[in-house]
Amino acid sequence: MTQFGSPGDTTERDPSPAGPPAPRVDGVRLLQILDRLGEIGADPGGGVTRLGLGPLEQQARNWLAGVGHAAGLVPSTDPAGNLFLRLPRPARGPVLLIGSHADTVVQGGRLDGAYGVVAAIEVLRVLHATGTRLPFDPVAVAFSNEEGALVQLPFFGSRAVCGQLADGLSATDRSGRGAREYLAEYGGDPDRLAEAAWPAGSIAAYLELHIEQGPVLERAGIPIGVVEGIVGRVIVDIEVTGQAQHAGTTPMDARRDALVAAAELVLGVRRIAADKICTTATVGFLRTGPNVTNTVPGTARLTAEVRDIDPARLAAGEAAVREVCAEVERRTGCSVRCVRSSGSAPVATDPVLRRAIAEAADALGLAQLSLPSGAGHDAQIVASLAPIGMIFVPSSDGISHAPAEDTPPEALVRGADVLLRTVLRLGAAAGGDTGRGKQPAS
Amino acid sequence: MTQFGSPGDTTERDPSPAGPPAPRVDGVRLLQILDRLGEIGADPGGGVTRLGLGPLEQQARNWLAGVGHAAGLVPSTDPAGNLFLRLPRPARGPVLLIGSHADTVVQGGRLDGAYGVVAAIEVLRVLHATGTRLPFDPVAVAFSNEEGALVQLPFFGSRAVCGQLADGLSATDRSGRGAREYLAEYGGDPDRLAEAAWPAGSIAAYLELHIEQGPVLERAGIPIGVVEGIVGRVIVDIEVTGQAQHAGTTPMDARRDALVAAAELVLGVRRIAADKICTTATVGFLRTGPNVTNTVPGTARLTAEVRDIDPARLAAGEAAVREVCAEVERRTGCSVRCVRSSGSAPVATDPVLRRAIAEAADALGLAQLSLPSGAGHDAQIVASLAPIGMIFVPSSDGISHAPAEDTPPEALVRGADVLLRTVLRLGAAAGGDTGRGKQPAS
Repeated sequence: MTQFGSPGDTTERDPSPAGPPAPRVDGVRLLQILDRLGEIGADPGGGVTRLGLGPLEQQARNWLAGVGHAAGLVPSTDPAGNLFLRLPRPARGPVLLIGSHADTVVQGGRLDGAYGVVAAIEVLRVLHATGTRLPFDPVAVAFSNEEGALVQLPFFGSRAVCGQLADGLSATDRSGRGAREYLAEYGGDPDRLAEAAWPAGSIAAYLELHIEQGPVLERAGIPIGVVEGIVGRVIVDIEVTGQAQHAGTTPMDARRDALVAAAELVLGVRRIAADKICTTATVGFLRTGPNVTNTVPGTARLTAEVRDIDPARLAAGEAAVREVCAEVERRTGCSVRCVRSSGSAPVATDPVLRRAIAEAADALGLAQLSLPSGAGHDAQIVASLAPIGMIFVPSSDGISHAPAEDTPPEALVRGADVLLRTVLRLGAAAGGDTGRGKQPAS
Repeated sequence: MTQFGSPGDTTERDPSPAGPPAPRVDGVRLLQILDRLGEIGADPGGGVTRLGLGPLEQQARNWLAGVGHAAGLVPSTDPAGNLFLRLPRPARGPVLLIGSHADTVVQGGRLDGAYGVVAAIEVLRVLHATGTRLPFDPVAVAFSNEEGALVQLPFFGSRAVCGQLADGLSATDRSGRGAREYLAEYGGDPDRLAEAAWPAGSIAAYLELHIEQGPVLERAGIPIGVVEGIVGRVIVDIEVTGQAQHAGTTPMDARRDALVAAAELVLGVRRIAADKICTTATVGFLRTGPNVTNTVPGTARLTAEVRDIDPARLAAGEAAVREVCAEVERRTGCSVRCVRSSGSAPVATDPVLRRAIAEAADALGLAQLSLPSGAGHDAQIVASLAPIGMIFVPSSDGISHAPAEDTPPEALVRGADVLLRTVLRLGAAAGGDTGRGKQPAS
C-alpha cells in the first residue's frame, strides 16, 4: 500500500473549502440501477433468488455489462464468470479493484453484494464522466458465485482471481451437477479457468462496499462502518449418541436422551459468547433421530460455530466448544464426539485503506464506527493478493439473507459517496488529480 | 367380571399337588411359530417391517390362520382386517378374547404384538388338544394395525371391534392413500366396516400378553409383570418463533434464538418428570428452521409428551408443560405457543383379572411385579367394551420398536404359561374343569 502513501499524507490533498466541490455519485441513478438489478431473480415469494453460476447471475452480469457499456465503460468477463468494467482509457499503474458480487442466496435480499457492484460501477461512471486522472487503474468487478448457494463453492469468482480455484471444477450443486456444466452453459469457460488468476502485484488494493448485515450501525445511529477485518470462523460438527427408547416405558433414570444432551450443548455453546470468550457462538443446525413424539431421541447432530476477529479468541472459542462437549458427555452418559469441519482465519483490512475510508467519511460529514465484519466477503479472499478495505452501511433491523433485507436509500447513496471519495483520496495520496479539474459531464 | 367370581374364589380350585399336572404350553412350538412369523416382513436392515393394513400384515394373518387351521382351530377375518381363531366346538357363554396385534412399526422388533398373538393361538391349541371345557368361549385375536405406522390410525382393529371406527375410512397413509384402498386390497371390506363391531356384553374379558417394552422387569429380575393399567398421555405441540439472523453479524444480545429457547424447553420438560410431577415427560420431536450452520435459528417446533397412570398427575404434568412454555417465553423474548394436540385418559386393568394373573404366576412359582404400562395397547381400547387384563414379560435392555427388541426364549415360554394358567383359573373360578381331565393330545 505504499503507493498510496501513509495515512497522514492524504490530508493535505483533500479539496480545500475554497476549491471546486468534489464529485458525488448520482444517487437517483444508483438507486434506479439497484432496483432494476433486483428485478432479475425477483422471487414471487419475496426477495431475490439469483444463484451463482446459474442463468440469472449470467443475466444480471449481461445486464450490468450493458449498463456499463452504455455509459462508456468497457465490460469483459473472465472464464470464472467474473464481470469487469474498465475505463475506456485505463490509467497506467496497478489496478484498484472495486466491487462485490451479483449472486444471492435462495430468497435473499436485493442489496447483499449487488449494492457494492452497482456502487462500484457508479464510481467508475463518475470517474469517467469527470475525466478524473488517477495514478492507478480503477476497475469495477462483480465476482461470481460468492454465496455458493447453488454450486457449493462460495467465493468462486474471487478464488479464481486469486489463483485459489484448482478444485473449482470438482464443485457441484446439491444434485451433483458440476461447475463445469454451469460455467459452459452460463458464460464461463471451464477449460480456461486458470487464466482467471491475476498475477501478484497486479492489484494495488481492493475496496468493497457492503451492507452490514447486522444491527450494529443502525443501533448506534452511525451511517458508515469502517471494517477492521473479517472475523475468522471455526465450525465444529458434534455427534451425540444416546439410546432411542420408548417414551412411555422407559423410566427417566434409565434414559440416555440425545436431545437432552443436545439441548445442554446448545445452551453451553451460547454461554461461550455470553461469557465473552469469543464474539459469537451459535448452534444453527440441529437434527435429532428418530425424531418422533413417542421415542426418546437416540441421536443428535449439531454444528457449533464460533467467530472472532482475534485469532487467540477464536482458538479459545473453539477450545471452549470442546470443553462443553466433554462436560455434557460426562454429565449425560451420552457419547458426544466433536470434530472441526472447517475453519478460516481472521483477515485484517489494510490500515491505510481504513484511514482513507474514515477520512472520506469525515470529509462528507459522516460519522463512522470501526467494526469487524461478522460475515464472510470476497475481500477476505482477495486479501491474499492485495490490501483490502471495506465500507459498511446500516442494515435495517440487522436483517440480511432474507427478503426483508433493506437499507434506507439515503444511506445507500452516502455509502457510495464514501466509496467514491475514498478512491479520490487514494488517488490524491498517490499523486492523481482527484477529479477536481472537471465537473461531471452528465 | 362377576362371572369369574371374586379373586379369592379361584384358589381352592387350583390343581392340588396330588392331582394330574395342569397343562403347559408347548414352548418349542411357540418359539418356532414366533420365529416363522418374524420372517414375514423381516427387514434386510434388521428387525421386522410389517405395516398394519398392508400386504405383509395380510400375509402374516393368512399364515397364522393356516397354522391355526392345521391345528384344528377355526380362523375368520372381519371387515377391519382382524383375525380370529376359535375352538371348533365353541363353549356357550360370552367370549374370553385373548390376543394382541400382528403389525409392526418400521424396522420394529419381532415380539411387539406378535408374541401375544402367537401365545394366544398356542393357548387355544392347548385348550383344544386337552379338550378343556370352559364356561366361556376362548377366542384368539390378531388385531389389525395397532401401530398405525402406515395407515395413520393406530388401534384400527380394536377400535373397529369396539365400534369406535366411524372415522376409519378417512385415515390415510402419509402419501394420502386411504384406508379404503388398503382394506379392499389386503383382506378387509371397507363397505362393511361397521359390522366388525361387537355388541356390548359379548366379551367377558380381554387378556393381552405382551413384552414390557421397558427395563423395569429386567432390572428387578422378575419374570412376570401384572399390569395395573395403561398410562394416559397428553401431547402438547409447541411452536417457538424467534428471529432468523446472520450468525456472524448479529451480536449475542441482539438475538432471539428459537433453538436456544427450544433447548430450554427440552430441559424444562425433562425436569417435570425429574421433579416427580408426572412419571414421564419427553421431547421426542424437534425441528428448527432454517437449520443451517450460519444462521441463528428463527423457528422451532417441538412436542412435549407427558404420561401417568394417575389422571391428576397427568393433568399436573400437562399444566407444568404450559408453565415451562410461559417461563421460557418470558425469559428468551421468543414467542412460545403451545397447544394440546392429543390426549388419552389412563385405563385401569380389572382387579379380578390382575388377581388371576398373579395367582397363575404364583402357581407356576414365578415372581410378579405390579407395574403400569407406559405404552399403549389394544387393551386400552377394548376396555370400553370389557374388563381387561395384561401380562408383561421382560424386554432385554428395555428395548422395543427397534431391531434389537428381544426377550429370552424361556421368559417367552413362561409368559405364555402364565397366560394359559390365567385362562384356566378364570375358567375354574367360573365353573369349568380347567383342563385337568385330559392330557395334551400332542
